[in-house]
Amino acid sequence: MPSSSPRERFLAVFPALSAELLDYLRSEGMPAPAIEWYERSLAHNTPGGKLNRGLSVVDTVDIILCTDAQGKRTRELSEEEYRDAAVLGWCVELLQAYFLVADDMMDASVTRRGQPCWYRMPGVGNIAINDAFMLEAAIYHLLKTHFRTRPYYGLLLELFHDVTFQTELGQLIDLITAPEDDVDLSRFSLQKHHLIVVYKTAFYSFYLPVALAMRMAGLDDESLYKRALDILLPLGEYFQVQDDYLDCYGAPEVIGKIGTDIQDNKCSWNINVALAHATSEQRAVLDAHYGQRSAESEERVKAVFRAENIDVEKRFKEYEKESHARIEKMIMDMPENVGAKDDGSNGLKREVFRSFLEKVYKRTK
Amino acid sequence: MPSSSPRERFLAVFPALSAELLDYLRSEGMPAPAIEWYERSLAHNTPGGKLNRGLSVVDTVDIILCTDAQGKRTRELSEEEYRDAAVLGWCVELLQAYFLVADDMMDASVTRRGQPCWYRMPGVGNIAINDAFMLEAAIYHLLKTHFRTRPYYGLLLELFHDVTFQTELGQLIDLITAPEDDVDLSRFSLQKHHLIVVYKTAFYSFYLPVALAMRMAGLDDESLYKRALDILLPLGEYFQVQDDYLDCYGAPEVIGKIGTDIQDNKCSWNINVALAHATSEQRAVLDAHYGQRSAESEERVKAVFRAENIDVEKRFKEYEKESHARIEKMIMDMPENVGAKDDGSNGLKREVFRSFLEKVYKRTK
Repeated sequence: MPSSSPRERFLAVFPALSAELLDYLRSEGMPAPAIEWYERSLAHNTPGGKLNRGLSVVDTVDIILCTDAQGKRTRELSEEEYRDAAVLGWCVELLQAYFLVADDMMDASVTRRGQPCWYRMPGVGNIAINDAFMLEAAIYHLLKTHFRTRPYYGLLLELFHDVTFQTELGQLIDLITAPEDDVDLSRFSLQKHHLIVVYKTAFYSFYLPVALAMRMAGLDDESLYKRALDILLPLGEYFQVQDDYLDCYGAPEVIGKIGTDIQDNKCSWNINVALAHATSEQRAVLDAHYGQRSAESEERVKAVFRAENIDVEKRFKEYEKESHARIEKMIMDMPENVGAKDDGSNGLKREVFRSFLEKVYKRTK
Repeated sequence: MPSSSPRERFLAVFPALSAELLDYLRSEGMPAPAIEWYERSLAHNTPGGKLNRGLSVVDTVDIILCTDAQGKRTRELSEEEYRDAAVLGWCVELLQAYFLVADDMMDASVTRRGQPCWYRMPGVGNIAINDAFMLEAAIYHLLKTHFRTRPYYGLLLELFHDVTFQTELGQLIDLITAPEDDVDLSRFSLQKHHLIVVYKTAFYSFYLPVALAMRMAGLDDESLYKRALDILLPLGEYFQVQDDYLDCYGAPEVIGKIGTDIQDNKCSWNINVALAHATSEQRAVLDAHYGQRSAESEERVKAVFRAENIDVEKRFKEYEKESHARIEKMIMDMPENVGAKDDGSNGLKREVFRSFLEKVYKRTK
């Protein structure tokens, strides 16, 4: 399909996966309203985002299988290889859908991806909890039907189980550190922020797609998974720090939303940097105004963020530069095509991480 | 442990499993409040019920491994075998905990097992959604640490995945058939009731414990799982019909609660039997009064249940007799110790099902 973009080609796989899941419900004798309900839930919650996580699986499989040690393309993915990689990609998107449906309920969010959150759709409400469960169940159904006979099937299951648990741990720390209705900045710290973003975001958004692709591509040297983790967790952390920064400093017309982290008492990078450098007077302002539902309080907090001794904007730019250099060095310190067999196959290529690094560091939304 | 009851011995395994899970959180660097939170959630939601499902795993392993074809005890489970069976039993209890935490939120229930529902505990609220997720995650963590090297590990995972999805399907049909605030008896039928109870209850409460025990005991003839399913789904259905019946006809001092199915618009066996035999006048009474939050409406419905042409009580007794006979015949039609190897081991014994049948049919609460 030369004329379609990578995103379009990936999106074109989804209807068949949805149909497979609905066929399964039919085969179990489910009544039509239940099948229609699941179809709506799958369609509302699964595509519609940026699909970066799902596309990462496909891109990574492509780099590992179709480029040589010099980074030159040697072939294209076969239809079957593309399909397998896309199924794994959609499983990551389903995992994200499962988390987001639930997170939106726990955060009492109103919109997501430009439409109402699923639990706010007419007639849904708390049924969304069971719908979240069924988005997760879809992952294991698809893995079973597409990968059951592969030698790495068990390892795929384990990856999803492990990363799911880790993400839930991240969500738990976030929920009890920063409940919306109980502001207590003494619970915050840059170390706590690090833990939250690594667990809540980096494992499933950065490590999982690459590790799935590596399993599918036949990389069986376990030390490669440790290498990937060591690079991808810091990369995921940077991604989330940038997200936090843009919530406050991004132009709304570019990031597509008006940031609410300050009013929502979010344990964001910005507030943690401010807390780390605040004088006791500044700290008193933050204690009094962070997490308050008023534009005036928000402005008081932002003024502290701008104070010369804090200057979140400057510190972000320093952090960005430092983290980019640090991750680039980690990539360069990794031997090219490490873990490869004698014929050069099955190695882990630097390009897997370089392509991520570029995508993440140049984004503005 | 000769002096402790089976329930006490099983309960005594739980603290070590909880400690294992908390150790895992510690090893991931989780802060103390997160560890304490998970500990409270595990303790509040997992033990405390009747533990029938968990105990069924242990009982079934014991029957398969420790009795001969004549039903005579030949040995006791080793400590290791007991432990393995108990871990699987607790995994079933964790699965149930995961469902119940969520079901209580979706049903807006107030109490469970004589204490407040988890989401109603101080400070919990919607965080309970993530807590439900983490009860499910515990299953796969325990299976990994205890069974990863066993040849049947993959089959255990698949059993949990499949049964989880089926239970969620049952919950979905139930939720959209009988929403509390939208009474429409035309959505009800005995066939719909059958589907709901088999999917929502029978798979995870009856089939899952036995199938797990069969896997652990080394039964690898796939046709035995089909046989088990064919007996256990009707048994589970009878169990739930009895539950529905007792909600309306059981003595509150015996069943330990005051039934609310009629006021809650539940798709119960009782209402479906009544609908199947009601005259158009009776149907009008049911349409007007079922699912209404008043004692007067409830009494009007109960009067229809008692009408001579409907007589739910009589029909239940007939159903009970018929289903007991039908399931007993299925058990007797199954060859004793079917699937056994030449030395008599690894067969499926009738006693597995007989012990269930007896427990279920003689209960009054």
